[in-house]
Amino acid sequence: MSLLYALDIIGTFVFAISGIRLAAKKKMDLFGAMVIGFVTAVGGGTTRDVLLGSYPVAWVQDINLPLTIALAMPFTFIFRKYIVNLKRTFFVFDTIGIALFTISGMQKALSTGIHPALAIVMGMVSAVMGGVIRDILCNEIPLIFRKEIYATACLAGGLVFFLLDYYTGLSESIIYLITTIVIIVIRVVSIKYDLSMPKMKDAPMDDSD
Amino acid sequence: MSLLYALDIIGTFVFAISGIRLAAKKKMDLFGAMVIGFVTAVGGGTTRDVLLGSYPVAWVQDINLPLTIALAMPFTFIFRKYIVNLKRTFFVFDTIGIALFTISGMQKALSTGIHPALAIVMGMVSAVMGGVIRDILCNEIPLIFRKEIYATACLAGGLVFFLLDYYTGLSESIIYLITTIVIIVIRVVSIKYDLSMPKMKDAPMDDSD
Amino acid sequence: MSLLYALDIIGTFVFAISGIRLAAKKKMDLFGAMVIGFVTAVGGGTTRDVLLGSYPVAWVQDINLPLTIALAMPFTFIFRKYIVNLKRTFFVFDTIGIALFTISGMQKALSTGIHPALAIVMGMVSAVMGGVIRDILCNEIPLIFRKEIYATACLAGGLVFFLLDYYTGLSESIIYLITTIVIIVIRVVSIKYDLSMPKMKDAPMDDSD
Repeated sequence: MSLLYALDIIGTFVFAISGIRLAAKKKMDLFGAMVIGFVTAVGGGTTRDVLLGSYPVAWVQDINLPLTIALAMPFTFIFRKYIVNLKRTFFVFDTIGIALFTISGMQKALSTGIHPALAIVMGMVSAVMGGVIRDILCNEIPLIFRKEIYATACLAGGLVFFLLDYYTGLSESIIYLITTIVIIVIRVVSIKYDLSMPKMKDAPMDDSD
Repeated sequence: MSLLYALDIIGTFVFAISGIRLAAKKKMDLFGAMVIGFVTAVGGGTTRDVLLGSYPVAWVQDINLPLTIALAMPFTFIFRKYIVNLKRTFFVFDTIGIALFTISGMQKALSTGIHPALAIVMGMVSAVMGGVIRDILCNEIPLIFRKEIYATACLAGGLVFFLLDYYTGLSESIIYLITTIVIIVIRVVSIKYDLSMPKMKDAPMDDSD
Repeated sequence: MSLLYALDIIGTFVFAISGIRLAAKKKMDLFGAMVIGFVTAVGGGTTRDVLLGSYPVAWVQDINLPLTIALAMPFTFIFRKYIVNLKRTFFVFDTIGIALFTISGMQKALSTGIHPALAIVMGMVSAVMGGVIRDILCNEIPLIFRKEIYATACLAGGLVFFLLDYYTGLSESIIYLITTIVIIVIRVVSIKYDLSMPKMKDAPMDDSD
């Protein structure tokens, strides 16, 4: 099993847990929690694959992804008392997860011969779209449009990945590592110093149309 | 016309009506009601086909499905006074509808060589996704995440269908019948005794993240 | 560059601006505004392409579309004071935009050998789905289900386009022009006289199911 695949599984597991936790907050039943966990974990990769027309989509092809998500359900239930205390741990995994999903999403997109700028967009889509669908199903304005330099970290990481891959002779694993570190550092720094993208509220928009 | 196809048309008709009725409750205009009826009826099969990469999607291929939905609009309008009283009748049709959509969805999925467990998921997606999209467009948390053993009945029916299909020599029509009865019984019993999936509200989740 | 392509670019630009403006009203950050602008501009065409299984989808194939959207962001920011006053101008562009998207969507659909009635639906999907996704992401009931003969104008235009294309020997550019005028006139007249599709609120629906 390659390192990339192992990280993909971990990312899937952590994303599933984040979906299950939001469903629990929304007082959904076990089935709803399962579904929300599922779409949070696979929504990004599925959106990417459908946009690229890359069939079969990842989780249809690889039963290990659905199995990983199925395991996240009892895991979340059994360890629910500890998961709260593990918030920092989960933050780390979640950040590794988006880094990994950005990288694997970009690689899949580049392999279809897409324009590199769009491959970066596809990497970001892979990383954040699961959370967007999760929030829509829970009837909330998606978090990433409101808070945190989250998707921006993915875009920056994608750019770094592309530049290193295109202009240097570094090995893949080194490029993965650097990209992951860039994404983690941007996200950690943005949270520590409460940075966020500027809002557009100053624009004197007319509300009447 | 095969029995399966006839049931598919009936399921489409009943699902369209359920969408039109919700749109009317939300005070949408006739166009909105038409669209909501449409996506409720075809949303499940379309999602399945897009996820499977099975093109053309069902309603693009078969003009009878859009025509059936177009007929549901004047039907709902003309018979609106009686539809309320027909609630039990519609409950029966709707339940037959999800049973049928589960079966036809599973069959289409299995024909692509997908893992049987995922075919069951695809059957459930075919049956419930139309209602999920309907609720999202109407800005509600999808009903199936909140109430009733609805999707669970589809999953159970899908499992029964697979086991009978794989391990017995029963004819297709018998397997259809048993699967449909299993789904109907689970749903009727769960409503009669007000059963629902347990909620996850007891988990001491931290709301601050 | 053909006239059709030029109008397609203009439509994309105007739709992106309408998405960015709604995001600004919702006090989203710059990234959120960018994404909402993007999906508003490409959502219709992408939905059409995914439903048709027509890969690669338009904006993945043609980098000019994402570039046009990227330009809409600074444009909206710099000219935000004037955009309000330009409301009529934008109304004109937006209406031209939906007319053009209806036509190009229908053409693409017809080229796949789809039933003409479904091609009209696909033209309408191309024109209105971007706005629908924009409203869902912003957690609102899609505007087109509530107000204005907007989608209906697209359907009427699509019908005119088909009839002229099928039953007359007129040149393509004349057919485009007539279709565009039909859509614009329907929309302008419906707004001037405050016309809208009738609602279904009179139906004595039972709210308890």
